[in-house]
Amino acid sequence: MRTRRHPQRGTVAGALPDAGSLAERFVAVRARTEALAKPLSPEDCALQSMPDASPVKWHLAHTTWFFETFVLERHQARFRPFDPAFRVLFNSYYHAVGDRHPRPERGLVSRPDLANVLAYRAHVDHAMHSLLDGLDPASPAAALVELGVHHEQQHQELVLTDLKHLFSRNPQRPAYRPSWPLASVRPARAKWLTHAGGVVEIGHAGGTFAFDNESPRHEVLVAPFEIATHPVTHGDFLAFIEDGGYRRPELWLSAGWDTVCAEGWEAPLYWERRDGEWRTFTLHGMAPVDPGTPACHVSFYEAEAFARWAGARLPTEAEWEVAAAGGKIEGNFLESGAFHPLPPRGEPDPGRPAQLFGDVWEWTRSDYSPYPGFRVAEGAVGEYNGKFMCGQYVLRGGSCATPASHIRPTYRNFFPPQARWQFSGLRLARDA
Amino acid sequence: MRTRRHPQRGTVAGALPDAGSLAERFVAVRARTEALAKPLSPEDCALQSMPDASPVKWHLAHTTWFFETFVLERHQARFRPFDPAFRVLFNSYYHAVGDRHPRPERGLVSRPDLANVLAYRAHVDHAMHSLLDGLDPASPAAALVELGVHHEQQHQELVLTDLKHLFSRNPQRPAYRPSWPLASVRPARAKWLTHAGGVVEIGHAGGTFAFDNESPRHEVLVAPFEIATHPVTHGDFLAFIEDGGYRRPELWLSAGWDTVCAEGWEAPLYWERRDGEWRTFTLHGMAPVDPGTPACHVSFYEAEAFARWAGARLPTEAEWEVAAAGGKIEGNFLESGAFHPLPPRGEPDPGRPAQLFGDVWEWTRSDYSPYPGFRVAEGAVGEYNGKFMCGQYVLRGGSCATPASHIRPTYRNFFPPQARWQFSGLRLARDA
Amino acid sequence: MRTRRHPQRGTVAGALPDAGSLAERFVAVRARTEALAKPLSPEDCALQSMPDASPVKWHLAHTTWFFETFVLERHQARFRPFDPAFRVLFNSYYHAVGDRHPRPERGLVSRPDLANVLAYRAHVDHAMHSLLDGLDPASPAAALVELGVHHEQQHQELVLTDLKHLFSRNPQRPAYRPSWPLASVRPARAKWLTHAGGVVEIGHAGGTFAFDNESPRHEVLVAPFEIATHPVTHGDFLAFIEDGGYRRPELWLSAGWDTVCAEGWEAPLYWERRDGEWRTFTLHGMAPVDPGTPACHVSFYEAEAFARWAGARLPTEAEWEVAAAGGKIEGNFLESGAFHPLPPRGEPDPGRPAQLFGDVWEWTRSDYSPYPGFRVAEGAVGEYNGKFMCGQYVLRGGSCATPASHIRPTYRNFFPPQARWQFSGLRLARDA
Amino acid sequence: MRTRRHPQRGTVAGALPDAGSLAERFVAVRARTEALAKPLSPEDCALQSMPDASPVKWHLAHTTWFFETFVLERHQARFRPFDPAFRVLFNSYYHAVGDRHPRPERGLVSRPDLANVLAYRAHVDHAMHSLLDGLDPASPAAALVELGVHHEQQHQELVLTDLKHLFSRNPQRPAYRPSWPLASVRPARAKWLTHAGGVVEIGHAGGTFAFDNESPRHEVLVAPFEIATHPVTHGDFLAFIEDGGYRRPELWLSAGWDTVCAEGWEAPLYWERRDGEWRTFTLHGMAPVDPGTPACHVSFYEAEAFARWAGARLPTEAEWEVAAAGGKIEGNFLESGAFHPLPPRGEPDPGRPAQLFGDVWEWTRSDYSPYPGFRVAEGAVGEYNGKFMCGQYVLRGGSCATPASHIRPTYRNFFPPQARWQFSGLRLARDA
Repeated sequence: MRTRRHPQRGTVAGALPDAGSLAERFVAVRARTEALAKPLSPEDCALQSMPDASPVKWHLAHTTWFFETFVLERHQARFRPFDPAFRVLFNSYYHAVGDRHPRPERGLVSRPDLANVLAYRAHVDHAMHSLLDGLDPASPAAALVELGVHHEQQHQELVLTDLKHLFSRNPQRPAYRPSWPLASVRPARAKWLTHAGGVVEIGHAGGTFAFDNESPRHEVLVAPFEIATHPVTHGDFLAFIEDGGYRRPELWLSAGWDTVCAEGWEAPLYWERRDGEWRTFTLHGMAPVDPGTPACHVSFYEAEAFARWAGARLPTEAEWEVAAAGGKIEGNFLESGAFHPLPPRGEPDPGRPAQLFGDVWEWTRSDYSPYPGFRVAEGAVGEYNGKFMCGQYVLRGGSCATPASHIRPTYRNFFPPQARWQFSGLRLARDA
Repeated sequence: MRTRRHPQRGTVAGALPDAGSLAERFVAVRARTEALAKPLSPEDCALQSMPDASPVKWHLAHTTWFFETFVLERHQARFRPFDPAFRVLFNSYYHAVGDRHPRPERGLVSRPDLANVLAYRAHVDHAMHSLLDGLDPASPAAALVELGVHHEQQHQELVLTDLKHLFSRNPQRPAYRPSWPLASVRPARAKWLTHAGGVVEIGHAGGTFAFDNESPRHEVLVAPFEIATHPVTHGDFLAFIEDGGYRRPELWLSAGWDTVCAEGWEAPLYWERRDGEWRTFTLHGMAPVDPGTPACHVSFYEAEAFARWAGARLPTEAEWEVAAAGGKIEGNFLESGAFHPLPPRGEPDPGRPAQLFGDVWEWTRSDYSPYPGFRVAEGAVGEYNGKFMCGQYVLRGGSCATPASHIRPTYRNFFPPQARWQFSGLRLARDA
Repeated sequence: MRTRRHPQRGTVAGALPDAGSLAERFVAVRARTEALAKPLSPEDCALQSMPDASPVKWHLAHTTWFFETFVLERHQARFRPFDPAFRVLFNSYYHAVGDRHPRPERGLVSRPDLANVLAYRAHVDHAMHSLLDGLDPASPAAALVELGVHHEQQHQELVLTDLKHLFSRNPQRPAYRPSWPLASVRPARAKWLTHAGGVVEIGHAGGTFAFDNESPRHEVLVAPFEIATHPVTHGDFLAFIEDGGYRRPELWLSAGWDTVCAEGWEAPLYWERRDGEWRTFTLHGMAPVDPGTPACHVSFYEAEAFARWAGARLPTEAEWEVAAAGGKIEGNFLESGAFHPLPPRGEPDPGRPAQLFGDVWEWTRSDYSPYPGFRVAEGAVGEYNGKFMCGQYVLRGGSCATPASHIRPTYRNFFPPQARWQFSGLRLARDA
Repeated sequence: MRTRRHPQRGTVAGALPDAGSLAERFVAVRARTEALAKPLSPEDCALQSMPDASPVKWHLAHTTWFFETFVLERHQARFRPFDPAFRVLFNSYYHAVGDRHPRPERGLVSRPDLANVLAYRAHVDHAMHSLLDGLDPASPAAALVELGVHHEQQHQELVLTDLKHLFSRNPQRPAYRPSWPLASVRPARAKWLTHAGGVVEIGHAGGTFAFDNESPRHEVLVAPFEIATHPVTHGDFLAFIEDGGYRRPELWLSAGWDTVCAEGWEAPLYWERRDGEWRTFTLHGMAPVDPGTPACHVSFYEAEAFARWAGARLPTEAEWEVAAAGGKIEGNFLESGAFHPLPPRGEPDPGRPAQLFGDVWEWTRSDYSPYPGFRVAEGAVGEYNGKFMCGQYVLRGGSCATPASHIRPTYRNFFPPQARWQFSGLRLARDA
């Protein structure tokens, strides 16, 4: 019997619990971002490897800018900016706030240096602590802090994925965390689960925090379908490659095939073949591709082609959400310190999909579009989600780089169909 | 009272009725394609103005290639190709057929010349006539001929839109049909029609020809909505421009705004401002922008931004289709010879949307994706539609360049969100 | 003994003698341009295969524009333009004349069509005949006509090279002149000729027509050198290729090697290897590479790398000119109708280089820069040459596409170092 | 009387004398490179602002790699590399050494970090000290050390120019050295000096170090000419701008005008107009453009256009060299700490050009090509100069960023005609 390995889990330094009061969660989230950056040199934090990715230093500063601009500037008495130039320098994409430093040039800014950005964080944290002290949890300011906390969790994931991309461009393939002790586990085999379909509800029901793009909760008619118990594994993907998957245009969407040809794709991102064996770059350095782990760093195009090859299809986001409804939010998240998808652990609940949360984001066949009745919020925060609802596809479930408290069954992540640098995989579905 | 004009309709030379037996329709469609090319010089037919567009000569040849490759090669006894090189040269995108001449280089092929391509048409027509004589209408061959007839109608529209783009790049702005007699008509004002929503059926019900992407007919849950009686007009669009529509990022999708900035868009395609007045290029040469006609040559981005500015939204394709269900398919089609959107004629049926068909394709908010249960056909014709279901948006209703017999309420056209060279406009919708 | 072939020479239709009075030469040159276009269809004449090349129709019109704009407009009583739009449309690069239609869009202009451009030629020719009748040969107008005649000869060569490039992009590889009867001749072997160097004079001495870039005649100090009796042959170049010439960076200039890698060069332009044998595209269709003919369609980079590989170097333009001084201007020119470099004919004069003129332009190691004391002429014609004196290299001697009466020992042609679509080859030199 | 300012000169930290034994000069040059980097953070040293520029950290490492690869690897007993990966990572362009990390990706390498690169320097310096101890000054190893010392001086200049470019891309425009105390000086006015021409000698005569591209010394025939006593000043250039210099195509080379239009040039690099006044970015931050200082950061195109506007021309490199022959090598070099061109100091020698050395490199009209009889050295160091002899123009005299001991009258610097980020200016010449 073939065995697989699982990691001996550690904790990420500084990973305080994300639960508790808003003030406690603010402290915990801020601390974890800095803990993620702790092993990094000033150079590691300053570089930008492609326009889609940002330097770690920029993430450290931009998440701070979010609190300074949207909370302190509006709600702090006698507010004075830490540095007026930061208003432009660390504005990501909010036209309503004013000018923005061009995204592709985020890696050209050596000053402020890392120490100065950490001082910026300390300064804003200090002011936030005063403001949070006695803040009415039902106030608009509290809602903005809540948004900022979840915003910063999103950037924690990007710190890891952007750094991974940067390190992958270094010919020495450095490791973010050198050691990665793994133990053997049994493999799982995906089975089909049937869902009867019908008029179902999806979207966020309120009561707790959610992003605006998850609302309003609404009814949708779903035809009967089947969904796999487990994500597609690296072993499955190796079979696709060996069957000529990257050389057969009939398996691909037209735009996908164009991308395969233009980019010379032969395997998922970060894979390298040496002496006939596939290896992949991880945050622990180069490692063999483990067939028992969920397939990762594939684009929507590759996910869609794989599904066609397998005689199946990607689920819609509605299918995914009804399959996920009512389940426990458990899995291999950022807190495990694995920073890589892992094999399933333990026995899944019978009749329920496993590994829905954590490990890898799962591409759906749904383009990222507004739910019926969706309204963009007034003002700058209205730019948070709505304006990106074009040309992107929805991913669900979070990944090994997502904080555990950040994910929900209704959570809608989204990326363009060619994006591969996130921990993105897939789960198969088919008509019942 | 302000008056508008409408054209004195003529007939397009060679516009035989599209109805009748398959053989009759084959003859009529083939004849009309050549009639469309008749006023053109060999040079007019040979040039390619951008990779998205093709030379008229290529359209003449490719539609012929379709019959030769998919019908004659398989079903004609003792088939011999007119020219073996044409199999590659005029293959558009069918990987299963073999190699393809690169699309951006279609304008580098001076030989075969126009006369030779017309001889190719005559040769294939002759063989087709023999084959059609006595063909079982229920045979696979007949189904392929039927597909080829509708395929050629699609290319008739592209002949006009691609030629219009080519002529627009000529500094002399030549006219395809110089004279355009217009008479005055009254303007119409759009009102809202309400639809109660519920579980409705969309998609093609069978019985007559439809493309595979219109199937299967299926149920979908639609929330109550309102839809405008008329398309947005050029007058409406002028108000959008005058209100700074092209200078206000808050109105735009992020990708749309990036395109506005990168391309320097200030108005729909083909518009030119001279001495404070907007003029537009038409197939009859430069003409003033007529406020009473449907807005045209706008991208999905512009349609979406306009709708936001107007406090409304684009309809989904399901909303559009249920609003259109049961209506008469009348309008300003290719046969009118206007080759330009026109003001509404006569009084619309009370309680029904007007100008749904013809004049301008109407952008919907729906990305072009497979209907539940959609299956791609086996073999090369399976490449017809399915592989393009990514990164495009659905348009409905046909345009002034669409043959009347080509359009249906279930018809799904699709283009990328930045495309503007089709006769594309919009109709507003909103939540009820 | 290996034998080579030479063509049975014909005459180019319409190739009247270029000698005689200015009026006679005007007529002859104008007629030959049209004769060159005679075998071509309107489509052949309309297409543009790359920004560096122009459609034949454009050449027909631009050479006419030159006479209309620089001669008739200034010197004809009651001048009226044939079409005012042509002033912009067919202006190549003369800022002083006003706006110019963008060069990369010359292939987007289907109208005026070929017939209209030929009418334009006839119209201007008619006016020119009147003006030439009784024109003072010493007048400024006569000087401009003279310039226009030589200008049109330059474009005759470009008609052939641009058309060749266009046809090469057609997968059917059409032939401009199908038949090319060749006979066997003996091969020649290049030897070294020694020149003692010293202070020599180069540049045009006056008395006959020359372009401004050939002046002033001036002294230059030349070190003793040796120069080859014959150009490098295709056989020589095959040896270079077989010795890994295109795979050895140490043979190349840095910019040349970058180009080899970026463009994937493995052989001169138009070469194709099939079944182990090299073939090349000619104006007579595909043909085997003939080892006995001068190497052709190589860039400056390839010429320079070949010379290094051969233990030699390119001559400077001064060396070339002193080697050529006093020789007869004979060779394989446009008039031969071969339109391809040929093996040497007959025995060369002892002690003199052979094939200096015709067959292939010969790259020199000299950048194209102003001679000491060079002055740009006043007005628009001052833009003829001077403003291009940067980033280009000098070629000497004319080619098989150059009219015989067009070339001189002092003639300076120039192209960027990566250009390959001219009939460009090389002759070796070395320090004595 | 208008007054100008000059700086109170300081010394650059670590600027030991460059004179002395080879070992002493090695120590001095190595120390100065590190002194130049001393005020910089690890982030400052890691970033790359464009493919033409390199990170400071890369310069620190590559100059070390030069000694390790060309000296230690060949001449040290029991040589072991500091890190085998550095052989590829810090190879600039030597194909003969093996693979090279791609130049545009030098800014994607966060590891080795700055501390590690400084350790690399210390390690190699230690080994070099042992090797230099008792090294025969006439040995091949000593010649390579000498080359390495001059090589490192070249990179000292690039440290400053590349850093300046990087800082200019930071919206906060940081200063490398904040304070720049300036005092008033009198302006100078350029006059013409006449040279009789004739057969002169240029090139390096031997006896001291020179790069291979300065050899062999050879005769050249120079026509009588005049050359200006001083470089063109910023005041002169302001007059050119105010006279529409950047808007008049007739002043420009064709390739220059294309660049002006494509890049939107309106002034030299680093200039910004605010409230009608021109300011420029310097290594001391933003500063007003000082009319009395030599014009700087202009391309060959701008230099050439300015000269045409001024009714003059650029000198050839031979003219420049004979004008410079026999003069003292004095000027505003790197050691002054000004890092910016300055007004002339004191009275120039009558009849001799002033400010030939230091302040700004002076563009000549000469393309960078091999001197007659030039031979590329065997092996990897042969790639030092020869392979770049194409498409570049020669600059002479050194700049305010050049070490004083690095420059010679025969020194040939070279850059492409569009390059502007060096301290490049011009001096006028004209025919006598």
